[in-house]
Parts: sequence; C-alpha cells; structure tokens
Amino acid sequence: MTVTVVGSVAFDSLETPFGRRERILGGAATHFSISASMFTDVRVVGVVGDDFGADELERFHAKGIDTTDVERVAGARSFFWEGRYDNDMQVAQTIETQLNVFADFDPKLSDASRNASMVFLANIQPDLQRGVQEQCGGARITGLDSMNYWIESARESLLRTLSGVDVVMLNDAEVRMLTGEANLKTAAAQLRGHGPRVLVIKQGSYGACMCTEEGFFFVPGMPLDRVVDPTGAGDAFAGGFFGYLDSHADDPFEESSLRRAAAYGSVMASFAIEDFGSERLERLTHAEVVERCTEFQRLTAFEHLAARERVTAR
Amino acid sequence: MTVTVVGSVAFDSLETPFGRRERILGGAATHFSISASMFTDVRVVGVVGDDFGADELERFHAKGIDTTDVERVAGARSFFWEGRYDNDMQVAQTIETQLNVFADFDPKLSDASRNASMVFLANIQPDLQRGVQEQCGGARITGLDSMNYWIESARESLLRTLSGVDVVMLNDAEVRMLTGEANLKTAAAQLRGHGPRVLVIKQGSYGACMCTEEGFFFVPGMPLDRVVDPTGAGDAFAGGFFGYLDSHADDPFEESSLRRAAAYGSVMASFAIEDFGSERLERLTHAEVVERCTEFQRLTAFEHLAARERVTAR
Repeated sequence: MTVTVVGSVAFDSLETPFGRRERILGGAATHFSISASMFTDVRVVGVVGDDFGADELERFHAKGIDTTDVERVAGARSFFWEGRYDNDMQVAQTIETQLNVFADFDPKLSDASRNASMVFLANIQPDLQRGVQEQCGGARITGLDSMNYWIESARESLLRTLSGVDVVMLNDAEVRMLTGEANLKTAAAQLRGHGPRVLVIKQGSYGACMCTEEGFFFVPGMPLDRVVDPTGAGDAFAGGFFGYLDSHADDPFEESSLRRAAAYGSVMASFAIEDFGSERLERLTHAEVVERCTEFQRLTAFEHLAARERVTAR
Repeated sequence: MTVTVVGSVAFDSLETPFGRRERILGGAATHFSISASMFTDVRVVGVVGDDFGADELERFHAKGIDTTDVERVAGARSFFWEGRYDNDMQVAQTIETQLNVFADFDPKLSDASRNASMVFLANIQPDLQRGVQEQCGGARITGLDSMNYWIESARESLLRTLSGVDVVMLNDAEVRMLTGEANLKTAAAQLRGHGPRVLVIKQGSYGACMCTEEGFFFVPGMPLDRVVDPTGAGDAFAGGFFGYLDSHADDPFEESSLRRAAAYGSVMASFAIEDFGSERLERLTHAEVVERCTEFQRLTAFEHLAARERVTAR
C-alpha cells in the first residue's frame, strides 16, 4: 500500500513568538509525506532546484519516503516562502514568496506513483491537480487541498477537479468562499453535491470537522503548552488521514474508518505545530501517536444518561 | 433543589437574516431561567419597568419559574437592547442600548432565593455580583458570566468576584483579554489559579470547552439547518449546565457530572438559536432534549483501535 502526494517541496523562513528559522525544509508535500510516513509507504511528486541537496533528500529517505519523482531543475532555485506569525498564532503573514521552479511545475508521475493505492493532491493549480488525478484512475481514494487564491482565480477549474476526487480538505473560510454559504451545514451539503463523498473542514485552533453521508464528525484542537509553528498543520492532518486509511482500512469509506482517520489526522497536526517545520514529526514515536489519540478521545467523551433517566423537570 | 439567577430581564429588538422582531422578551436572566427550567426549579432576580406586564410574567410562570424577586419600578421602563446580526451570525452589532431601570439595579434576594442550592450571576457589574454571592454562602455551586466591558472597566473587581465562585463562563476572546494570554491552555490555568474550579470557555459557533482539574472537555457546535438568532445562546448554555447539575448531580464537581452538564448546556444553546428570543426553548420537549444529547455524543464519537493494533509503520 502506498500513498502518492503531489505538491510543493520548499524552503521556508519563519518567524514566530518562539524564534526565527532560515530556509528550513517546508512545503505542503513535505509536511504531508513525513506525516503519512508514520503509517504507510509514501511517494512524493514535486520539483526542486539545485539548492535542494542530499541533506534535504536524506530527511525524506530516513522516513522511508520515495523521492524518485522529485524532479530537480539544474540552475534554478526551489520554491521559497517567508512568513511571520503574531502572538495569536492564527494567521500567517506572508513576507515573501519566490515561486522559482514551482512556477513551471508540471508533475511527472512514474508508474509506481501513478499506481499508488491513494493519491493526495496538495494545494497546487487545479488544472495540474486534475491532470494528476486523471493519471491515477486506479487509486482507492483521491483527495485534494486548495486555497483562497485558486477559489478566486480558478473557481470553475477547482470545482471540476473536486468533483472528481473523493475527499476535499478546505478551511471553513474557504468552504464559505467557494459556496457563498455562511451556514456550514448548507455549505457542506452543497460542496458534497459536486461529487466528493467526504469533506474535511479545517477550523484552525478549533480543530476540524468531517462531513460524510452519515453526517458531521468533530475533532477539537488539542490544547498545547506551546504552539511553536502552525505551518503545515493542515498537510500533517491530511498525511495522518490518508496514511491511516491506506494502512488500516479495508473499506476506507466506512464511517468508523473515516472517523479514526480524522482522529489520527488531528493527532499528527497537533504534533506538527509543537516545533518548527517538520522537526517534531520527524522525531515522533509510535507510543506518542497512540497516547495522543487516547487523549483526543478523552477530550470529548461523556456518558449520556438520558436514555435511562428523566432529564427534564417538566 | 432550586437555582437562583440574577441578571437582566429585558426587551430586545432584533434583526437577523431571518427577519425582524420588535421588543421581544430578552435578557440574560430570562434566557438562563427558561433554559434551566427544563431541568429544575428556578428563581429569577431582576428589575423591570411598568412596560413589563402580566403577559411577560406569564411566560416565566408557564415554565414554573418563580418571579417573586423580579422588582417592578413604577413609572420607569425596562432594559432595552436593539441589535443586528449579519450573514455570518457570529457577532451582534448593537444599534441601541437603553439601560433604564437596569442602570440602578440593586439585586434584592428573598430568603428563598438566597437559600437556593445553586446560584448563577449573569453578566452584571462585578461588585453587584459579589454582593449577591456573599449573600448566598450556602449554595452548592456558584457561577458567573461577564463581558469585555467589565474586563476593561472593572478588571480588579471582576477578578475578586470570580475568585469567590466555582464556575466561570466567558468566551475565548474574554479569557484572552482578562489574562493577557493568547495560549488557551496557559490562560485557562491562570484563570483557574484565581480560585474557580471550573472554567467554561464559550467558542461561538465552534462550541464550548470546559477546563477542570482533570483537563479539557470539548463540545462542538451543533451544525444546524437554520441559525435564526444567536442572542442568549451563552445564557441558555449556562441554564442547561446549572439546571442539569442541580437536578441530577449528587456531587456536582465530579468530572462525569460536569461533562454531562456541559453537554446539556450545549443542547440547550443549540435549540435556543433556532428561533428568535426564547421561543424555541419555551416549546421544547423532553424527547427533543434527550435526542439532541445523543446527537451531540455522536458528533465526536470514534473507536480508537490503537491499543490493540500497531498504528504506525515505522
């Protein structure tokens, strides 16, 4: 079983209340693949410049991630993003974006990547996502992420692309922007009406909710002592979600499997933000994953006595 | 068993995307008492003008709520608030506030109100809250709500008051404002350090979280087809929370009791916002309360297999 992820592999410079890091390993496909690698085999499809060296590749290989389809463009530089988070850690302020090799990204999938059991289209131009998706007809599940930029500039293409995938992951503002609906229940029904069976709505520090044919499922944000760097939390969620489904679910569309996948997604996102870049996920252990999943379960568990007692007075 | 609530009893004029209502029954103590009356006996302490007539009082009496301590000031008018909600239904825009009789509110408690088993101090000036709390030394649990206005204008008094109650209910912005802490875990620990054993952090449409000595407990917002009027949702939550504890909990500080109370609080808040003012709560049935509590439980339930299977690949 293998998950293929297509998206950005990049360098990030970050400033948060906890410090500053220059040109650390970043990019959506990076965060996704390191997260998913906790659960299953991963192949990453992306493009880098010759500033991306053996040390960076080794970080992937140490997690068993196959980088055969990471194209390297000589004489060019990798995608670079510089951002800053203020005290509330909710919204990243972009200081600088250099697309570099990413401007002409044309994902090239080997047969092995094309034949993966699951495929995740991280946030790239929707036409490119659709091109990849059409090459991966045998995948058990396909999913995508997107962003406000594509909703504004390529809305029709995005709707066409998402109508062909199984799982759509967006944040709540993006869901409202794409549907024009303020009510989340109505918006979710409208989006699922385009085709995807599963919608995951990311809600930042509040957690995430999933909408399937059986209704809504919520996972709260884990209260943490320190949120050091929220970059890549959504990609780490997606990595845990697809990684779990790929490795454990006989029927990945079964409600109980999807709920566990969302829980493991939240587990991975909660770890991801505890340190800069992917540093926390790279040193994560099996025991820590299991323990935090138990903590997540406890965050919302209550015993409902109403069935056996009269709750109301009148 | 009786819960006493002290706070505003008022008229509200409201405009939401679902319509407009003129001078309907409102006020924090109103929403609280109608909600709590589903579970236990309630006494309301407040002040109204002579525009507040027999029809309004009958709405309370129909729910078994004792209004003996609702003082009526002749020749004066009741507290009036006019507000508007835009499409996102998140924040109320105040059009007009007329304090009227509420400007000189001096809560007068009968022995019966003073001797209640639980007391809730809805959002009023913190000195007044403390005055009431000091009269109710025998209550099993006392709780309070407040708002940004008092945090800014009467911070020290509010901290003194909350140090003497058991349960503090604030929204997340208020918790951050009061503590100066962006991190919710740190802020919650700091606030509980002032004395209250239980902190309930209201998170608007995202739901609510409770912090006790055993950690955090989250209840999500129920996705609803129509959110007609969010006014009073927090007071309806508080009413369900204290009403449930008063009627059902042998030890109201037991974690399982507190969690169920927070769940019933969320149930009542979710109904409250389905119609204008307190209309939905006034026609609520026992069966509806029980059914929605089950729905809440289902919103977050997942089976965690990690204990008996190896989750991670490496």
